[in-house]
Formats: sequence, structure tokens, C-alpha cells
Amino acid sequence: MNLFQAIETRYSHKETFLPNPIPLANLQRIAHAGLAAPSGNNSQQVKLVILPDRAAVEPFYGIHQNKALQTAPAGIALLTDNAMVDERKRRWNFEKEDYAAACQNMLLAATALGYASLWLDSPFFDEGKQNAALALLNAPEGCHLYALLPIGLPNGEGTRREKLPYEERLFYGKF
Amino acid sequence: MNLFQAIETRYSHKETFLPNPIPLANLQRIAHAGLAAPSGNNSQQVKLVILPDRAAVEPFYGIHQNKALQTAPAGIALLTDNAMVDERKRRWNFEKEDYAAACQNMLLAATALGYASLWLDSPFFDEGKQNAALALLNAPEGCHLYALLPIGLPNGEGTRREKLPYEERLFYGKF
Repeated sequence: MNLFQAIETRYSHKETFLPNPIPLANLQRIAHAGLAAPSGNNSQQVKLVILPDRAAVEPFYGIHQNKALQTAPAGIALLTDNAMVDERKRRWNFEKEDYAAACQNMLLAATALGYASLWLDSPFFDEGKQNAALALLNAPEGCHLYALLPIGLPNGEGTRREKLPYEERLFYGKF
Repeated sequence: MNLFQAIETRYSHKETFLPNPIPLANLQRIAHAGLAAPSGNNSQQVKLVILPDRAAVEPFYGIHQNKALQTAPAGIALLTDNAMVDERKRRWNFEKEDYAAACQNMLLAATALGYASLWLDSPFFDEGKQNAALALLNAPEGCHLYALLPIGLPNGEGTRREKLPYEERLFYGKF
């Protein structure tokens, strides 16, 4: 799919997914798109865990209940690993930027392959849910789970939230 | 350009640019790609300022000296505007995620149109440079400049930093 088409087609799918499994090669293609994203100081601190089937996603529905986690046939978890960041460079922390760029690449890649997905982050702000999810992932010390992307064929197209006209957020030379 | 090709072709261009001007329609296409990115709580707090020509970029070279700002024929500044965020939702601050997703869309869009660019953020961590840039942009109170993307035809392809083999950052089911 053309880049601009993928950008315009992507949306946040908060509804249910069809049970059709996702070929592992497609999940790897989405993950590789994430790992190709830029990384501040080239730390490459973003690490990904593919949840290849419903059995791998189901325990996360035990942690947080929503329609996407209840039905998604696969997913990818996005973490940052502080062990990848050079001690001297920690005063500039690019972990949110790095993970968000990787996440956006993956949402576009999922869209280009015909899937829907959702940038699911806020549940993991909760310390209990964060720790439970890290335990499920067997994540090493120093890792933080930033988001989990449920991925699958959408069971009908979800609602798109309305955007302001672009010209209201776009300026020329100065405000 | 195909999405996956854009993702693999993109790189951080830290060298000089050719002086060829960029048609405004192309800069708008890049900016619109940024504004189409997802936004936490749909706040749409990201605002963009197109620097349409060398005269608009030059003053930023006065603030921060590097090869990209010295030569880029155009650019786009990425800001967040706190006035767009609902007071009740400020406990969850998605400004870095929102701006980074918009930035990544724009880097891919620039690549797809044949340009090179650079995610230039760290100079604006400095309070003096931040304030000087906000003044140049005539930015309203509550705005923060997160990054400036110099955009142009690269004067020779820059160096790409080496990436770890993807499989070292990719796991299945758990770590």
C-alpha cells in the first residue's frame, strides 16, 4: 500500500476483531517496521514481543478488559529497555519518542497489510497492571511496557473520531 | 512510494542539503501526513509551522548551528499546544507520544516524496534556544517546540547508523 494511503486509512480500532489468525510472517513484517524507526542517540532501546495467537493475547484480557483484547487473534507488545541506554546519555531520555515512532510505524504496517489495530497505552500507566503485564512477558529488570497493539481483521469498521480541519493546526512562517 | 519501502529508506540526514526549493504543495502534503497521526484522547494538540523557504529557515540557524539548518531550503516545526488539552485529561499527558507519531509520519512522507530530513529535537531542550525559537515562531503561550525538521534534497546520501540485527530486539510470547 502507498504510504499516504496507509496514513489516511489508519484509525484506532476499539471494537471487536474477527477470529482469523494472522500468519507469523505478517506479524514479523509489522514488528520489523517498528524496529526500523529512528531512535534517539541510536540507543535502539525499543524491544518488541509478538503475541502470535489468541492464547498469547488472552492473559492480557485478564489484566485489562476491553473489546479489542477480548477478541484480537494476535498482538505486539512495545517495551523500552533501559539497559540499552548509555549511562552518560540518560540525561536525555528519548524512550517515549522512540517507542511512539516505532508504534506509529507498526500501526501503518498493520494497516498496509489489511489489519486494524489500537495504540493501547493508558491501562499500563496503572502500576498493578504494568507489573502484571511485565510478569506475563517475563520482562527483564529495566524494561517498561509502553503499549500493547491488538492486531487482527476488524469485525466491521470501527468509528473514526472527528479531526479538526488541518488548516486550523497548520501555520506558515509563524503563528 | 510503498509504505514498507518508505520505512526502510528513511534515515536521519545530518549533512548538507541542495538549495533546490520545495514546492509548497509538497510541504503541505508532508504536514498533512503529520496531522493525520493518532492523538491521545483525540486532543489534536500538535500544531505545525511550515518554514517554506531558506529565508524562513535561516533564523533557526542563528539559534542552533548545524549543517542541516545551515543549508535546508525548507522545514517544518512541530509544537504542542497545551490549550488543546482538556483540563480533566491533563493527568495523562500524551504530548510526547502525539508529537513523535506526527513526526514519524512526516519523516516517512518526506522520504516518499524523495526528500531527506532530520528529527532535530535536542537543541530545543535548552531553555534559551527553546524561548528564542518560540519567539521566532510567534508561538502563543502554552506552546512547546518539540522538534524542527529541516527538509530538502540531500547533497549526497548521509551516513546511516548501524542497527542491531532485528532478532536481538524481537521476542515471541515472552522474553
